Amino acid sequence: MTQNRYSFNDPVIVLANGSFPSHLIAKKYLNKSGTIICTDGAADKLIGSGRNPDIIIGDFDSTSIKGKDRTGIWIETPDQNKTDLEKTFEWCIMNNIKKIVLLGSSGKREDHTIGNLFTLAKYHDEIKCEMITNYAKIICVSGENYIFADTNQTISIIATEPIDSITLDGLQYNMKNESLLPSAHAISNKAISDKFYLESTGKVLVFLNHIS
Amino acid sequence: MTQNRYSFNDPVIVLANGSFPSHLIAKKYLNKSGTIICTDGAADKLIGSGRNPDIIIGDFDSTSIKGKDRTGIWIETPDQNKTDLEKTFEWCIMNNIKKIVLLGSSGKREDHTIGNLFTLAKYHDEIKCEMITNYAKIICVSGENYIFADTNQTISIIATEPIDSITLDGLQYNMKNESLLPSAHAISNKAISDKFYLESTGKVLVFLNHIS
Repeated sequence: MTQNRYSFNDPVIVLANGSFPSHLIAKKYLNKSGTIICTDGAADKLIGSGRNPDIIIGDFDSTSIKGKDRTGIWIETPDQNKTDLEKTFEWCIMNNIKKIVLLGSSGKREDHTIGNLFTLAKYHDEIKCEMITNYAKIICVSGENYIFADTNQTISIIATEPIDSITLDGLQYNMKNESLLPSAHAISNKAISDKFYLESTGKVLVFLNHIS
Repeated sequence: MTQNRYSFNDPVIVLANGSFPSHLIAKKYLNKSGTIICTDGAADKLIGSGRNPDIIIGDFDSTSIKGKDRTGIWIETPDQNKTDLEKTFEWCIMNNIKKIVLLGSSGKREDHTIGNLFTLAKYHDEIKCEMITNYAKIICVSGENYIFADTNQTISIIATEPIDSITLDGLQYNMKNESLLPSAHAISNKAISDKFYLESTGKVLVFLNHIS
């Protein structure tokens, strides 16, 4: 991959090849996009929805779009040691994109969904990413955070690595300097006001499930 | 929860409240069930499909079935510190069930899907579980294993904890005494014959994606 002098309109959407956005919240993000980057076969789905991708990244083993029908910038990344989403994150980082919204990243193969979530965590220090699915907004955090939520919103926390100490305050079930392993231990908690406090010594995924 | 003198016809199916089985392979498991245990709201879906649950386990906050319409054995487990699926696994272990097939455990909320996979790993030493989704058969293994697959089947390995040493042999991309973190690193490998070898010092999830 080489760096070019691209400029991007915000917000930058990365569309992956899972379930296409169908929830109102997910569709709203897609409709407000400034730039749409598709991973491989997601380009077909986007074009099928009547939009055109700006950039397509992958090894092009999942797209049925032939050369002459291609629109946007096609960037071939044949590295078999990385997933299309990892390559897309690295391309975004190399091109100085600081923040992305990730859509279409769940809802099909479970290994892909989980791989995508670990990818969010892997590049957390280099690029800010909000993953918006048909069920939730998912972010990766570490350190000290105040996170906005809706009262009664279902909140789950899943560690991506063994966590020495996590503190949660402002949820129905709080924690104080507890250890947390990757597990189902902190699933289906609830916000009791419009924000909560989370401090963690390591990376955790926060699932803010859509209210309806 | 108390232990009763139940006896169960094999195979024992646990049906969770995610996407109802729609893939041919998942439906086949449901159709061949000897006993069906539903977690909470999954009972509604099973009854909606024309079958009756044998046992229903949960805090009954997701079911719309009222007392007089209940069929099967309803076991109330109000513990807020555990998910319905964790409570179901513990009930099965307490009742000497050695092996279950888990259906309906993915495809809706991503936090539930991941929580269910960690639950598989958590109880791995106590109960054998095959999770069959609309995309894959997923098992948790550790130690030395020969795993049956189909030639060209897409296989992913995801660690549920930091693994000191994993060896894979008989796949398109093999590993020899490598370390593996929970990550997207070993996703979308491929079987090159009808079985492969996996040895791991810790618990890993193996995703055998359905061929079609």
